[in-house]
Amino acid sequence: MDPMGCQSRKLENSFRLTRVGITGVKKPVVVIRDGTENHLTAEIDVFVDLPSTQRGSHMSRNVEVVTEMIDESVRSKVGSLEQLSANICKELLGRHGYAGYAEVRMAADYFRERETEGGRKTLERFRLIARATATRGNSLMKLIGVEVEGMTACPCAQETVRQMLVEEVPELKDLSGRVPMISHNQRNRTTLMMEVPEDVQVEADDLIDIVEGSISSPTYGILKRDDEASVVLHAHRNPKFVEDVVRDILGKLLEKYADLPDTVHVTVRSESEESIHKHNAFAERITTLGELREK
Amino acid sequence: MDPMGCQSRKLENSFRLTRVGITGVKKPVVVIRDGTENHLTAEIDVFVDLPSTQRGSHMSRNVEVVTEMIDESVRSKVGSLEQLSANICKELLGRHGYAGYAEVRMAADYFRERETEGGRKTLERFRLIARATATRGNSLMKLIGVEVEGMTACPCAQETVRQMLVEEVPELKDLSGRVPMISHNQRNRTTLMMEVPEDVQVEADDLIDIVEGSISSPTYGILKRDDEASVVLHAHRNPKFVEDVVRDILGKLLEKYADLPDTVHVTVRSESEESIHKHNAFAERITTLGELREK
Amino acid sequence: MDPMGCQSRKLENSFRLTRVGITGVKKPVVVIRDGTENHLTAEIDVFVDLPSTQRGSHMSRNVEVVTEMIDESVRSKVGSLEQLSANICKELLGRHGYAGYAEVRMAADYFRERETEGGRKTLERFRLIARATATRGNSLMKLIGVEVEGMTACPCAQETVRQMLVEEVPELKDLSGRVPMISHNQRNRTTLMMEVPEDVQVEADDLIDIVEGSISSPTYGILKRDDEASVVLHAHRNPKFVEDVVRDILGKLLEKYADLPDTVHVTVRSESEESIHKHNAFAERITTLGELREK
Amino acid sequence: MDPMGCQSRKLENSFRLTRVGITGVKKPVVVIRDGTENHLTAEIDVFVDLPSTQRGSHMSRNVEVVTEMIDESVRSKVGSLEQLSANICKELLGRHGYAGYAEVRMAADYFRERETEGGRKTLERFRLIARATATRGNSLMKLIGVEVEGMTACPCAQETVRQMLVEEVPELKDLSGRVPMISHNQRNRTTLMMEVPEDVQVEADDLIDIVEGSISSPTYGILKRDDEASVVLHAHRNPKFVEDVVRDILGKLLEKYADLPDTVHVTVRSESEESIHKHNAFAERITTLGELREK
Repeated sequence: MDPMGCQSRKLENSFRLTRVGITGVKKPVVVIRDGTENHLTAEIDVFVDLPSTQRGSHMSRNVEVVTEMIDESVRSKVGSLEQLSANICKELLGRHGYAGYAEVRMAADYFRERETEGGRKTLERFRLIARATATRGNSLMKLIGVEVEGMTACPCAQETVRQMLVEEVPELKDLSGRVPMISHNQRNRTTLMMEVPEDVQVEADDLIDIVEGSISSPTYGILKRDDEASVVLHAHRNPKFVEDVVRDILGKLLEKYADLPDTVHVTVRSESEESIHKHNAFAERITTLGELREK
Repeated sequence: MDPMGCQSRKLENSFRLTRVGITGVKKPVVVIRDGTENHLTAEIDVFVDLPSTQRGSHMSRNVEVVTEMIDESVRSKVGSLEQLSANICKELLGRHGYAGYAEVRMAADYFRERETEGGRKTLERFRLIARATATRGNSLMKLIGVEVEGMTACPCAQETVRQMLVEEVPELKDLSGRVPMISHNQRNRTTLMMEVPEDVQVEADDLIDIVEGSISSPTYGILKRDDEASVVLHAHRNPKFVEDVVRDILGKLLEKYADLPDTVHVTVRSESEESIHKHNAFAERITTLGELREK
Repeated sequence: MDPMGCQSRKLENSFRLTRVGITGVKKPVVVIRDGTENHLTAEIDVFVDLPSTQRGSHMSRNVEVVTEMIDESVRSKVGSLEQLSANICKELLGRHGYAGYAEVRMAADYFRERETEGGRKTLERFRLIARATATRGNSLMKLIGVEVEGMTACPCAQETVRQMLVEEVPELKDLSGRVPMISHNQRNRTTLMMEVPEDVQVEADDLIDIVEGSISSPTYGILKRDDEASVVLHAHRNPKFVEDVVRDILGKLLEKYADLPDTVHVTVRSESEESIHKHNAFAERITTLGELREK
Repeated sequence: MDPMGCQSRKLENSFRLTRVGITGVKKPVVVIRDGTENHLTAEIDVFVDLPSTQRGSHMSRNVEVVTEMIDESVRSKVGSLEQLSANICKELLGRHGYAGYAEVRMAADYFRERETEGGRKTLERFRLIARATATRGNSLMKLIGVEVEGMTACPCAQETVRQMLVEEVPELKDLSGRVPMISHNQRNRTTLMMEVPEDVQVEADDLIDIVEGSISSPTYGILKRDDEASVVLHAHRNPKFVEDVVRDILGKLLEKYADLPDTVHVTVRSESEESIHKHNAFAERITTLGELREK
């Protein structure tokens, strides 16, 4: 057998590569939050860079690292997907001696119990997003993110409808402050991600709360008739453009994370599947806490 | 070279197969409707059955047939995806002498111009679905189908909201017939498919009209502020469960296709992406015109 | 409040509906197999039929049933997704007094440990498919299914290559029985589903074994260099059309399930993502054990 | 009616937004290349930035601009998706007076005729990717990209197999230079994108040629038996890691675009759907021509 392996052969086109690795790995992962075990099915991508002097990247090592670190996590109780990503990231740099950069991405469905206004418990589905990136010799950065499905009602259509209806039904004029007007409403999908140094803690559950507090209304698995009407009323008393959703989240982040450093990266992205169109409305801010604080 | 080909070799497990073929083919197709050329990017699946005495199915012949028939269609002006499917189906039986059954499926995005209430022209996107199936010696059946994205507003939440608001604002009681109440509304995706003998004509455009006339409101690419309010008002004066959508379509089919035979197969399926839930509401009827007429 | 609910209102178009329900529910489910807990993230669809006299289907009850039955399953240790589907199915008929039919569908990623030829342990990903259908007054049918990703190598290209190479390199002629020839190989996705009466047991793990024994080679998460070469050699000494895959599975089913009744439904479907084409090769048999035994 | 519109209202959280717009628009587009009309179904996203002083972004204007520019393009014969994107981008800045940045993204299936080695014509499917970005007062940048599906055969498994087989069949030793060894091969999906100033021309067809010349083999819609064997032989005489694919493309870009400025951005990404694994192999380089030239 060739002791060198094919990956070490000499190269014709000796360019370095930004990221080399494996994508589409799926593994069962157990994460402990507040003493509770969360059994997740994680989708995992793993990358290192490749110098111009190295032909291939020993891909099988990547899967070994992922597998061993996940096994290890079950024994040593990892607290989050981002911490597991960070652990794998460091191990990748350890095993790929040639690499100066490592990156791990994870995503998984995640469930949380919640009560409706009427006191009914429902189990709601969210999506966790995690990433760790490490440059050899520098500190590791980790990203904590969530994707939340909720509901937005449009403030603009609501206002135009009010004007139209008041013309048709003048008696409505005095009531319209107390009777919320119809509007189009729809599923909204909002992503909130924060990238912080390894030793900084950000809880995905807090990010979910921030998003759900910034859309017209959270959505629920089970709604009895009264609960349903309450959600609809709440959403229409709280209409939001996707632009409003992103900005309200930014405002809440400044309050909640007043102690975090200026260098923390923030991505907020909100997309509404407009019920009156076949296309979506989209708003996004990519920034740092520092930049937001300058405002 | 082996003149027989590998597909003719003797078999260990000589079971017949229901469908053998190729899936995921994409081809540009030109269809002429009312003198206008429609350039479609069609996704195509092609199948024949395979007797127990035949090892393989000469898959490459299937692509040849598809390619030649599409080329032929450009010269001889095919009128619809279902007619093109029918032509390919017959040719498959011609070239696969061993086959007793052939099936062709197609789907493509399709655009139609339309006016909003305010007189503005928009180009709306739909999905065409076509299928042809032939059993050797019997007549060919073809399926004409459409998938339409539109809007539904929920009648039940609307009624509960009305009751709640009238308790809060008694003056509303007398107005509530003239002022549409808020409800949740959302994107709805409805599929309508009819399967008829080859010589029967059903126009996909008519099916689109039937679906759009049975949901709370069609949706539009462009809506200026007044148009938008009109759509929202119209939808809330016309609230629909997915069950209502399917039944209204069934009623319209009986009227529109009074002359078609009892044997015509009908599939109606409606799915609303509920804005207050993360799951969808779904209703479906699979039937024949004959069964519907018995009612 | 209206004690009747909107779903009981009188109807204009009083057609019965084949299936009404909710789709796209996701829930965490715990299944016990051989004493081991499997934590699955299940995608769930739930349907009942709707008579012509009933306007709507009380959709929220469906989610309640799903939620309560899943909670119940955690306490009472359900053995499989199909058993959980069956339990939900019966409860649906119990709570929707108007319904004569109920149907539950589930699918989930599922992981199983396995050894490579070289003795290395890997955790492989599969997909479980479950369904239960019940008609009031009749016995319940349940479906147990798996989707397996593996590898196929093409026997036909391999044979043509052999003929070509022997012309170029005559010395190869005598070796060609011992040296497997190159061919195109690729990812294959095979689905095997059996539908049986409620009291009949079929193990999803057995179905996975049958599929993996019928393709050119299973695939593995981790393969060191020698393992990798062994897999490649094994696949090319075991080339398979999709037609062969389906037939070999049918043969194995007859042996394995010799004791099951003739009425058991069987669906086998195999699709290869051909590495030399942009389209897929597809083969399928939909049948019963009885029909297979006649042969 | 309120002459200001809801989008101009005062704001609570007055943060600026990076990108606001609409996503998921689909439109039929006609592009003229070398005198031939290409009818494409384009997926389109359109964004502008939003200053902190502006509440909403007049989303309906975005669709109007897209629609009018596409209508205009049919009359004035646009040469490419990227040119159409550029035109829309400029118009967006014209109509959204508050915006300092505009971005348009497009993607579409695209077909090109090609001959197999055996002289057979096939119509192959590719994916065009286009983007234009403009900052007010600065020159516009446009991106020309392609996604190509092809085939890779693994050089490493091939070498290990050779060593294994030579041990089993010593006579093979002298032949192994002339007889290509088996390996795993699979579908590969490679993306090549170049971002250039508006006045620089890059042809998508050239990018397709560069990618197809850098993988183990292009793939074909139709292959007769001899063509099929030739493709398999060619791929196995030309085995490639994803790393090799990316580097070979980088080498070819330096030759082909020797005259383009150093500032041109280049993204090359290659992903192989490994036939022996359930995960993919991935390699990427994000760089500029200048950086590549330094090497």
